[in-house]
Amino acid sequence: MTNVTAPIRVLVDAMGGDNAPLEPIRAAAEVSKSTQIHIVLCGDPAAISRELAAVEHVAARIEVLPATGFIGMHEKPREAIAAKPDASLCVAMRALGDGKADALVSAGSTGALVLASSQWVPRIEGVERAALAAVYPTQQRANNRDRFALLLDVGATVHCRPKDLLLFAYMGHAYASRISKVERPTIGLLNMGTEATKGGETLVAAHQLLLDEPRLNFIGNVEGNDIPLGKADVIVCEGLLGNVALKMAEGTGELFRNLGTWAFKQSLMWKLGLLLLSSGLRRLKDLTDYSEYGGAPLLGFTRPIIKAHGRSGARAIGNAIKVAAKAARDGVCTDIADCAREFEKRTAAPS
Amino acid sequence: MTNVTAPIRVLVDAMGGDNAPLEPIRAAAEVSKSTQIHIVLCGDPAAISRELAAVEHVAARIEVLPATGFIGMHEKPREAIAAKPDASLCVAMRALGDGKADALVSAGSTGALVLASSQWVPRIEGVERAALAAVYPTQQRANNRDRFALLLDVGATVHCRPKDLLLFAYMGHAYASRISKVERPTIGLLNMGTEATKGGETLVAAHQLLLDEPRLNFIGNVEGNDIPLGKADVIVCEGLLGNVALKMAEGTGELFRNLGTWAFKQSLMWKLGLLLLSSGLRRLKDLTDYSEYGGAPLLGFTRPIIKAHGRSGARAIGNAIKVAAKAARDGVCTDIADCAREFEKRTAAPS
Repeated sequence: MTNVTAPIRVLVDAMGGDNAPLEPIRAAAEVSKSTQIHIVLCGDPAAISRELAAVEHVAARIEVLPATGFIGMHEKPREAIAAKPDASLCVAMRALGDGKADALVSAGSTGALVLASSQWVPRIEGVERAALAAVYPTQQRANNRDRFALLLDVGATVHCRPKDLLLFAYMGHAYASRISKVERPTIGLLNMGTEATKGGETLVAAHQLLLDEPRLNFIGNVEGNDIPLGKADVIVCEGLLGNVALKMAEGTGELFRNLGTWAFKQSLMWKLGLLLLSSGLRRLKDLTDYSEYGGAPLLGFTRPIIKAHGRSGARAIGNAIKVAAKAARDGVCTDIADCAREFEKRTAAPS
Repeated sequence: MTNVTAPIRVLVDAMGGDNAPLEPIRAAAEVSKSTQIHIVLCGDPAAISRELAAVEHVAARIEVLPATGFIGMHEKPREAIAAKPDASLCVAMRALGDGKADALVSAGSTGALVLASSQWVPRIEGVERAALAAVYPTQQRANNRDRFALLLDVGATVHCRPKDLLLFAYMGHAYASRISKVERPTIGLLNMGTEATKGGETLVAAHQLLLDEPRLNFIGNVEGNDIPLGKADVIVCEGLLGNVALKMAEGTGELFRNLGTWAFKQSLMWKLGLLLLSSGLRRLKDLTDYSEYGGAPLLGFTRPIIKAHGRSGARAIGNAIKVAAKAARDGVCTDIADCAREFEKRTAAPS
């Protein structure tokens, strides 16, 4: 499937997300015109044909994989997958697992995406736990528009063994060096202190594993404040910790927006001040806009899987499709597999 | 010591914090003039006399407990305590453990405070792990100036057993109902999802323990975004999680300040906008100013211990002294002990 001449094939869950099927289909149409990527739209064939007919697209680069129904954003993942094996996400994921495409994109339920991946897509050898990575901009981005920081895992796991955290570091390293084009991305271990002895047994052991790996540019433990300040290109942590940190940032952002709205109504002077700042706030919004960087990679499987934000429009899903294709083309998963294999070799038979 | 007529006695680590001994001594002087609290300043007698002589104070309400040396903010806590048993923090903590005062305040090293407490102050019966609580303002504060939210633990523990989390909830409940004057404070369990089944074995079991406790106003699991939005008056979590969340908020605040500084220099229009907003930003700063709420309580010991911020001035330390006295007077620790005792009774011999 992935020989040099064949185009990269990306499966798109056409029924997943708040704006499905309209926005995923518009995204596919747009990408079909501007790239060589071959897109497989998975979903209700009638709805897909109808929407596709309304937008300009390159028909030769779009095919349809029929599915019946979809998994809603608020359904319980396990129950929904069991009850609806023919839903778009399940059909798409089985096709990915069977090697019928090189990568997958969905803007649907995160929980269902993680579960369906585990069920139908082979994991990389040596990897027992997948990681969902949050991708976010940092101040570093001023010098490299492709540069983003990764925090992983943010919710695919709860607690992790030291080895899982090392594998997350390999995943982040591979993704950051290929997608953000940072040659030796810095890696930090999220902890409650910078000393190597902090954070309990698992983190102490993980710290040592990371130190012992010359492939990785490990800068040591990082703390919560280092996440938004972008101290490391890749920050690894167990899912419970990453999930809380990620949502904490979302909540803080929401608090600031609430305060802005309040201040706008409160006084004419503040209103004027906010208006004068509006171009700056817009620029800030552009810099931090998730639609720019195409979503969160779910790593640890043999093929790239990208979770686009539920609220994604065509532009964000289009970027996710391009990132998924880039990850497949540039061998992100092969790179992770190489690291995992060498680690197994090294620890199985120490010289 | 704590009979109804005797004044509350509060030990103050006169040598702890970035601005010691000047600011702790000024705080003691101020409190001696405005309240009935009896203050025991622990530190170098010569330095204390010299600073006290320079400020107006009520001499009858201030006594000196001599100590030699102090533990610096950047010393390794365990090593420093072992090497300097006569440092101000150690002497003060032993005095608290011996019942020579009702509460203690220090603006010195957090790590040293936690360790010294464990070493010299008896824990409440049934409590095995202490919790350091971060106190922060929420939007609720508009209607009740005393109202703050608590996040605990933020660093005294790493991982916790379900029972420890229940005990943290008792601690938060007691502190919030006495100090913030919220009659039935809402309690949330920090997790990666709202469903009772989320977060792994420990959190699932803790969720059940919290549900089974009619004393507590448990509102279920809360997520990271609920912390800054103030969804619960008390949020309980293991220390690793709370520490990362707390520092994440600090880092986000710092990022916003950096952006403000950058915008100020960037364009005349943005500069003007920020100037027009300055009274709003000042009000925001007032609302979130740590010097208002007197520091973070370290809970689980038989007497209240308050950690004031390292950068505290006299006003912040003075507030910490008043909060410590209030916690002692209103029986926060007795309340926690009652809850712990009843829980033991209930679970030891279920009817």
